[in-house]
Amino acid sequence: MNFILDERLAGDTEFLVDWPLCRVLLMNDQQYPWCILVPRVMSDNDDVMKELYELSDDQRAQFDAESVFLSKTLMQYFQGEKLNIAALGNVVSQLHIHHVVRFKNDIAWPAPIWGRHSVKPYDDAALTDQKEALINLLKPAFA
Amino acid sequence: MNFILDERLAGDTEFLVDWPLCRVLLMNDQQYPWCILVPRVMSDNDDVMKELYELSDDQRAQFDAESVFLSKTLMQYFQGEKLNIAALGNVVSQLHIHHVVRFKNDIAWPAPIWGRHSVKPYDDAALTDQKEALINLLKPAFA
Repeated sequence: MNFILDERLAGDTEFLVDWPLCRVLLMNDQQYPWCILVPRVMSDNDDVMKELYELSDDQRAQFDAESVFLSKTLMQYFQGEKLNIAALGNVVSQLHIHHVVRFKNDIAWPAPIWGRHSVKPYDDAALTDQKEALINLLKPAFA
Repeated sequence: MNFILDERLAGDTEFLVDWPLCRVLLMNDQQYPWCILVPRVMSDNDDVMKELYELSDDQRAQFDAESVFLSKTLMQYFQGEKLNIAALGNVVSQLHIHHVVRFKNDIAWPAPIWGRHSVKPYDDAALTDQKEALINLLKPAFA
């Protein structure tokens, strides 16, 4: 029943922090501030969770708290126009919930970001800075 | 502070039921079983709610209950492959949360549905049938 992060998610993201329920990841895409929450739980038969409604009531309440904290923190820090939250999972089935800060001048606005533009990774220095800033903001929560 | 549904949302959808927090709408698009939850609340200054985190704790708990009921009901009834849940709102700013049942043989799979294919409305008879089936499933909840 140990939590295992999907390999594709692991490859596309950087680790930020583990909260009580979720692992918080930074999508390595400089085009948008984009974090992903992955509940660190497996199903009874040791498979991945796929749907939000498969979480228990307590887990969903904790997910809500973590999603709200992440949402407010991202919008306050980046001063976004709109937050896009989505649980899709048609390609990577492990339950993961996107939190994407959108701006009126981002390259996909006002369309959803998925499948619009190829991911554009941060350069090394910018990735280090972005990770450090977000870890400072997110790590104290739920400690 | 009366709830007013955004005109564009009203034009694209059919009314199914009002639950304690949300209005449940059917998107008039025969390509996917697609419902939308719209919390029937306005902000303090009588503007629309835009973000999930603007809801109170009690409202978010109720939203969670309504979203889970809708999710399970849609997936059970339509026997979908995956449920896509998303709060986007870059075009229509009034907070509304998509619940879309996806199938491996739907026209957009595995891409997200937004902006892929133009909406294809139901014909009259099919719309009546779909509405009736969903109202029967959804109306008894939270009564």
